[in-house]
Amino acid sequence: MPEEDALGRLTTRTLAMPSDTNAAGDIFGGWVLSQMDIAAGICAGQRAQGRVVTVAVESMSFIRAVKVGDILGLYTHIAKLGTTSMVVHVEAWVRRDRIGLREKVTEGKFKFVALDEDGNSTPVPSADELPDYAREMCEL
Amino acid sequence: MPEEDALGRLTTRTLAMPSDTNAAGDIFGGWVLSQMDIAAGICAGQRAQGRVVTVAVESMSFIRAVKVGDILGLYTHIAKLGTTSMVVHVEAWVRRDRIGLREKVTEGKFKFVALDEDGNSTPVPSADELPDYAREMCEL
Amino acid sequence: MPEEDALGRLTTRTLAMPSDTNAAGDIFGGWVLSQMDIAAGICAGQRAQGRVVTVAVESMSFIRAVKVGDILGLYTHIAKLGTTSMVVHVEAWVRRDRIGLREKVTEGKFKFVALDEDGNSTPVPSADELPDYAREMCEL
Amino acid sequence: MPEEDALGRLTTRTLAMPSDTNAAGDIFGGWVLSQMDIAAGICAGQRAQGRVVTVAVESMSFIRAVKVGDILGLYTHIAKLGTTSMVVHVEAWVRRDRIGLREKVTEGKFKFVALDEDGNSTPVPSADELPDYAREMCEL
Amino acid sequence: MPEEDALGRLTTRTLAMPSDTNAAGDIFGGWVLSQMDIAAGICAGQRAQGRVVTVAVESMSFIRAVKVGDILGLYTHIAKLGTTSMVVHVEAWVRRDRIGLREKVTEGKFKFVALDEDGNSTPVPSADELPDYAREMCEL
Amino acid sequence: MPEEDALGRLTTRTLAMPSDTNAAGDIFGGWVLSQMDIAAGICAGQRAQGRVVTVAVESMSFIRAVKVGDILGLYTHIAKLGTTSMVVHVEAWVRRDRIGLREKVTEGKFKFVALDEDGNSTPVPSADELPDYAREMCEL
Repeated sequence: MPEEDALGRLTTRTLAMPSDTNAAGDIFGGWVLSQMDIAAGICAGQRAQGRVVTVAVESMSFIRAVKVGDILGLYTHIAKLGTTSMVVHVEAWVRRDRIGLREKVTEGKFKFVALDEDGNSTPVPSADELPDYAREMCEL
Repeated sequence: MPEEDALGRLTTRTLAMPSDTNAAGDIFGGWVLSQMDIAAGICAGQRAQGRVVTVAVESMSFIRAVKVGDILGLYTHIAKLGTTSMVVHVEAWVRRDRIGLREKVTEGKFKFVALDEDGNSTPVPSADELPDYAREMCEL
Repeated sequence: MPEEDALGRLTTRTLAMPSDTNAAGDIFGGWVLSQMDIAAGICAGQRAQGRVVTVAVESMSFIRAVKVGDILGLYTHIAKLGTTSMVVHVEAWVRRDRIGLREKVTEGKFKFVALDEDGNSTPVPSADELPDYAREMCEL
Repeated sequence: MPEEDALGRLTTRTLAMPSDTNAAGDIFGGWVLSQMDIAAGICAGQRAQGRVVTVAVESMSFIRAVKVGDILGLYTHIAKLGTTSMVVHVEAWVRRDRIGLREKVTEGKFKFVALDEDGNSTPVPSADELPDYAREMCEL
Repeated sequence: MPEEDALGRLTTRTLAMPSDTNAAGDIFGGWVLSQMDIAAGICAGQRAQGRVVTVAVESMSFIRAVKVGDILGLYTHIAKLGTTSMVVHVEAWVRRDRIGLREKVTEGKFKFVALDEDGNSTPVPSADELPDYAREMCEL
Repeated sequence: MPEEDALGRLTTRTLAMPSDTNAAGDIFGGWVLSQMDIAAGICAGQRAQGRVVTVAVESMSFIRAVKVGDILGLYTHIAKLGTTSMVVHVEAWVRRDRIGLREKVTEGKFKFVALDEDGNSTPVPSADELPDYAREMCEL
């Protein structure tokens, strides 16, 4: 599925189910936020090669509603790198009813901090210390 | 439960359960985001006296982790009012393990737009058109 | 939200979602029972200042159905106090579709026993041993 | 599986999973109540040969905790029959960890009212109007 | 409920709920597969009197859709016994809308291996070593 | 993430969460089967450019357990094409704990039938009638 317009690498992709709806019959916004947090956390964790924790959502736009039966694809990349922190850009795109139109539904930025085994913040490794899959995943 | 430090009115309060955890054993951040979206949506819906849709998360800080068994209380108020839009400030506080220490865990701002029956944006009513419960709920 | 008719203190408040429905499209009665058990357990746990276990439902009336989109508020107070046991009165009220009519939907009594760290029954502390928040929460 | 001590007919049987636990690691009491409501509703619905609604829990005892991995079997029978109402006795038994000891964990009585297609109460049919499977299911 | 046509012993029975639906409004096939895996695993675990792991689905036919409100009954028996492995035949039957027609909806064969406490494969005990309930459960 | 060894195209990718575990603490096999059914259904639906229904699982091997925190990637392709039916080959691979070893955990074949709007079987379109994204998705 060539999805050239999406910024970043495909990180998660799932099907929106009836159990994820709100009272209006659309997919519940909190479910979409959860999927974005999972995808951003995978990207940050692979860049840090270890445990990470979400410290902030810097911005987030809900552009269109997600519907039951849509395939939701989440695209991520590292937008900014600090010593112990990472800002991950996330875009969510749907394929309507699995086979229809493809549209961007949300985008946003999540900030993470890398943690060591005791739960303290720890430096993010330099890019050349990363395994291949992580370098490709996280670099734009 | 006098919780004087929280800014806003108590809007939802729930118990964090094991089915809401992440791989690290803490409560999954996406679940907390979902609860914040629900509480902010209730506040905005009562201010608009009708259907609303989340259009943005303007800022969000994760201050401390939520643990299984914590009571999570969500406090909301209208922080800014536009013609058809509302910014809702949300704070989440926990009572640790139902009976322990009380701490703020997240805070953030969600932006909503009021919708009419056809799903188009519509003006938010003035405060003096609100029923009593909504005025008390939404005004600081 | 001034809800003067409800007996007890507001203990939990949540939004009824489509994933909680039964085959008839109403909110599943078991979900409402679960919310009542959670709220009663919070009240009993705060009164006992420790772990508690549900030993009985003494009575429970389902007065009206809960609908998707209703806000469900649970009100609790200690109705009877034994040496190691507590009877908690619970009332559930809804705000229809988040902004509509407010109605009582269920009420009932749950009995709990206080447990020590080994899981044996243990005396409930006297009221003047309670922290302020718990005294306000549990006393009518 | 000969379970002669249980009063009533086996109505539902399920496996207790980790997603059904409470903060103490046992199976959440609300989940057990939900399973009892489902089983009692099946019994009442088959006796009424139509839609029914729970109107009360008349009594309910929690005898022992349910653990993850237990098989939970629910046994029901009609304990009392009114013109439009039915009281269903429910017992829950577990087989510990699928293969271990068999024990009664809860028992209780749920009251239901039979509904017609407009949602009004309607007479329960006499026993000789029932199909065979329903007569065997509901009579002790 | 005499269900003489089903091959095997009744192992689990549950009510299909709206939270288990797919985008088409029927019960999601993956939920039915999950219920079959649970029931087959109970049968295999009782035959092995210990922990088992699914190693294969040898065949599986979806005959008819399951609908919200159907009671789903799962019937199992040991179809083939190896030294450390067991093939379990599973049939799923529904009672439509709790009181309507009874129909077979799926059938299939799952293969399990018995595990010892270290997670290594271990011989299945001979039938005469089984407790009564397990012999009745597993033999046809 | 170059995953050259997997046969087929990446169709879904999700994070395995604690709410998906079985009593042994591993990810529940039924959850993995559900994810495979979803991914295979997306592949079949895109090949058919319409609604499809699972009619059989032709084979399925569980090779290794899935653990909490693993990223589960599902790869699919059309293995056999009939007039109205499609056999979809599915492989599931994990990245352990988000950053560790990559391993194949299951593989299998699902059979689907294409349905028209009345729910009757209908011919699968020829490959040159497919939109580009579907041709790339479904052809090996």
